[in-house]
Amino acid sequence: MNTAEYLIKKLEELGINDFFGLPGDYNFNILYAIENNPNTNWIGCTNELNAGYAADGYARQRGYGAIVTTYGVGELSSINAIAGSYAENVPVISIVGAPATKCLDEKTLIHHNFWNINTKAFETAHKSVVETTAFLNRDNAKIEIDRILKVFVKEKRPVYISIPIDIAKMEISDRQTDYEWTSDKNTLETVIAKIARKINNSVNPVILGDSLVKRYDARLEFKEFVAKSGIPTTNFIMGTGLIDSDCPNYLGTYFSKYRNPKAQERLENTDCLIAAGPIYSDMNASGFNLPYKINSHIAIYGTYTIVEGERYDNVKMSDVLEGLTEAVQPREFNIEKPVIGYDKSEITQGNLTSNYIYPRLQEFIKENDIVIAETGIIHNGIAQMKFPNNSELHTQTLWGSIGWATPAAFGACMANPNTRVILMTGEGSHQLTAMEVGNMLRHGVKPIILVLNNKGYTIERMLSNKPEDKFNDIMQMNYSKFARVFEGDVWSTKVSTADELDKALKVTQIMNKLCYIEVCTQPDDMPELTKEVIADFKANAPSASEGYCTKPEEVKLSKTEDMQFGTTVHESLIRDMEV
Amino acid sequence: MNTAEYLIKKLEELGINDFFGLPGDYNFNILYAIENNPNTNWIGCTNELNAGYAADGYARQRGYGAIVTTYGVGELSSINAIAGSYAENVPVISIVGAPATKCLDEKTLIHHNFWNINTKAFETAHKSVVETTAFLNRDNAKIEIDRILKVFVKEKRPVYISIPIDIAKMEISDRQTDYEWTSDKNTLETVIAKIARKINNSVNPVILGDSLVKRYDARLEFKEFVAKSGIPTTNFIMGTGLIDSDCPNYLGTYFSKYRNPKAQERLENTDCLIAAGPIYSDMNASGFNLPYKINSHIAIYGTYTIVEGERYDNVKMSDVLEGLTEAVQPREFNIEKPVIGYDKSEITQGNLTSNYIYPRLQEFIKENDIVIAETGIIHNGIAQMKFPNNSELHTQTLWGSIGWATPAAFGACMANPNTRVILMTGEGSHQLTAMEVGNMLRHGVKPIILVLNNKGYTIERMLSNKPEDKFNDIMQMNYSKFARVFEGDVWSTKVSTADELDKALKVTQIMNKLCYIEVCTQPDDMPELTKEVIADFKANAPSASEGYCTKPEEVKLSKTEDMQFGTTVHESLIRDMEV
Repeated sequence: MNTAEYLIKKLEELGINDFFGLPGDYNFNILYAIENNPNTNWIGCTNELNAGYAADGYARQRGYGAIVTTYGVGELSSINAIAGSYAENVPVISIVGAPATKCLDEKTLIHHNFWNINTKAFETAHKSVVETTAFLNRDNAKIEIDRILKVFVKEKRPVYISIPIDIAKMEISDRQTDYEWTSDKNTLETVIAKIARKINNSVNPVILGDSLVKRYDARLEFKEFVAKSGIPTTNFIMGTGLIDSDCPNYLGTYFSKYRNPKAQERLENTDCLIAAGPIYSDMNASGFNLPYKINSHIAIYGTYTIVEGERYDNVKMSDVLEGLTEAVQPREFNIEKPVIGYDKSEITQGNLTSNYIYPRLQEFIKENDIVIAETGIIHNGIAQMKFPNNSELHTQTLWGSIGWATPAAFGACMANPNTRVILMTGEGSHQLTAMEVGNMLRHGVKPIILVLNNKGYTIERMLSNKPEDKFNDIMQMNYSKFARVFEGDVWSTKVSTADELDKALKVTQIMNKLCYIEVCTQPDDMPELTKEVIADFKANAPSASEGYCTKPEEVKLSKTEDMQFGTTVHESLIRDMEV
Repeated sequence: MNTAEYLIKKLEELGINDFFGLPGDYNFNILYAIENNPNTNWIGCTNELNAGYAADGYARQRGYGAIVTTYGVGELSSINAIAGSYAENVPVISIVGAPATKCLDEKTLIHHNFWNINTKAFETAHKSVVETTAFLNRDNAKIEIDRILKVFVKEKRPVYISIPIDIAKMEISDRQTDYEWTSDKNTLETVIAKIARKINNSVNPVILGDSLVKRYDARLEFKEFVAKSGIPTTNFIMGTGLIDSDCPNYLGTYFSKYRNPKAQERLENTDCLIAAGPIYSDMNASGFNLPYKINSHIAIYGTYTIVEGERYDNVKMSDVLEGLTEAVQPREFNIEKPVIGYDKSEITQGNLTSNYIYPRLQEFIKENDIVIAETGIIHNGIAQMKFPNNSELHTQTLWGSIGWATPAAFGACMANPNTRVILMTGEGSHQLTAMEVGNMLRHGVKPIILVLNNKGYTIERMLSNKPEDKFNDIMQMNYSKFARVFEGDVWSTKVSTADELDKALKVTQIMNKLCYIEVCTQPDDMPELTKEVIADFKANAPSASEGYCTKPEEVKLSKTEDMQFGTTVHESLIRDMEV
């Protein structure tokens, strides 16, 4: 077995069956290994950034993802996607095909380098955006693969490996190596005892779940802990879906002072906060208006736990949660459960608005759906939705790289071919990576794509000096026509009213093909939450020179009910919708 | 004047009127400075990689280019373009809007960072792909801007600057700083004397020009040196256009053993090679089959010169060449001038082939045209053309990042709005960055775009094990329809025969709009030169594991004549061509 074959086999064992990327003359040996392995597929993408995002979307569903690029030009094109995966703890391995060792050793000036050659420049560039890097040679190939995969499995974050073409086809030992790690037993016992005592002695404990629970594969343990302990539970935006909305002690998502006063109140009055995998960022923790002190909480991370300011290493999040489920005394808390999600929307005459779009989408999402929401105003609109049990929301709330969502949706489709994937993106973001729609069609996946066209970067219009600042304008295009440019089976349309959106969503339910809907709103339309957050931000940091910090203030919550729509659709309706 | 305004003013003085990039909430203050300066424009692009390529194309024409992105997500998306500019010595400044100093100092977890925050990670990532970096703060803003611009002007390579939002709007001194540098007089005299003596004592001197002559703004001095000295002169591919093809002592482009035996012979027998700005890379120096020893030559670089293995620093290329023009004794060399460029092509029945396309394009190119040729087989086809005087060819021969050409053509159009720009790209490459066609239309530029559709990555099909390796397939799309998806005035068509291509090129001559032509060939069609080089490479390094080194071998040159085509075009023809 050669080096490339060994690496691909090991990754396949971790659950990676699809490798995203682009070919290049330095990575052929890696691609042969993928094509020759009966359980792995090569998924060619339009460019490397898109491939990186696709691998990220895949990893969010599958647990792990991989991208293969070529030396210099390819790997650097994908580095932002890899950094995003690093930021949000999505385990993606960046595999690079490098020139032959002889060329590297002799510093031969071959293509994809500088005229003053620097053979390790690209590995160096990656060092600050991944967990660890490896550059293989004759002596270290097996050792380094095993080392970086151990890190990959333990840290659940991107790792980088560069493989010269001769090393990729060099025979190496395929002796089994186990990449799993186990919690340190003594530390685990100490941590569980400490936390359990703290919880059992508390009056108002609160559990806060966030995305790292998903990343470290501790969802079941988290759910059980929440269910058995009965402790009131909330989550940050990236933790959406961790708890079923009908769970009696679930308080819904925390939106700082802006929404959900019941969660806010619990957090204000807690004497024991147990945070599982929290990411305390501006957009995720809603502008840092936290009603509790981060330093005093219990924070359970993937490989370590912090209790009373002390860090305990080498304890798995899942083990800690499992232990707590046993050790914590179940209690009844007097919980007045808030209504979760949007109220039924008002169908207004004329233009489509956010007040209709998001409540309507809430009704549209079904159990098991995967929803990918782009950064910007959409993120705010979607985060407030009630999600059905076992549905999944992916956002890139922390890294916030516009363009991420479209290829990430492609990756999610490849990860779960039989699951409905709904992508909602803004047209400004979509333009960055829109060509990947062509590869969705080529690979036969069938997401429902909603492109919100509000004629420019709406969130930036709100944040910059004047909405009419020209730099927030973007090129205009015919989106539904765009989707039909590619070879493949697609249904596309454009909607501008509540009625049209409603019809289009109904059509998607009987279409067994990729559906692409341009959703038109006015440039200043956005969810109320977005308006409030931005107004608050501008009032408190008018010139953005003082950083992103605003002061807490209570805002009232509106009542919420479910919406119902029919699902019968006629052929004529489909024809009507095509533009 | 604030920091951003000062930086933009200084860049404007260097000739940058157009700034490419995308807005982000951390870079608004930089964008305001661009919009408020009456001589500078903001050119929004589809994504940051495209913006970087556009700035590269702009800098190749204007001397300098600039890209503005936002912290983390934006700057990392463009890093491959910046690295490419670094590789090929194209002076592009990467300007990044960073979060407020307070947030950076306090390590506040704001968007576009990792959950384990690392505020300098992105500057660090850039360090290995640019000449120098700066991260501004209250104390160093003016000093650091002046420092990096001095480096920018001297080294003519990318520099990087990250500006926190509060620092961008901080008032600083706008005291004039001069960024120019001058050659060290004594060193200059020594170098000129040494080289002149060597040349005057030689029997068979040869001058070799390459792209760094363009980058260091020494074209006039180079031309004069060639003309006055009478020394036989050739160039590498990236140096195409340095010398007018009718110059009596010009031997045409050097293609190693594959083409142009007269240049090869001269280089084999030279006792004094004067190389101006050479880049000795595989594709540029045609596979390293150099008939002379690099170590023994005279190499004149932008800021230093190497004579007899000794390096003399701080001498400008233009000063050295100017001095040599004076010091070298003009001589008559017995030069049998080779025929330059393609012979008239054979119009074969049926499918369009490279044997027709490139000779036909050669006839199509006029004086003052700017031609942008993508990496891959096109590069080989175009490099063999005869170019009219004052026309310009841009290729990315060394860095070779597919996708570069489309946005680079956009940049070149913006740099010279009244000049005809002809882009020739392969469809595989085009897909990576094709959305930028929309911004060409939005900004009203009118290049002629030829998209060679050969159904996949043809050059990779030749290099990998089997042409049918699936990873060289790409998504299929309707290109001429694609071009019409965007708002703007475009004429697009698809051609598959010699006659159709001929007609389409004629149509472009009367169209005052962007013309977009899909040029269809068979997957295995390519220039003869490409076939020869690849066959040779495969024979000598069958598994690519020994690096890119082949042995010299003589190949015959075919005779060349000019082609003539009529230019009368009728309206009906235009309609016929639209698909």
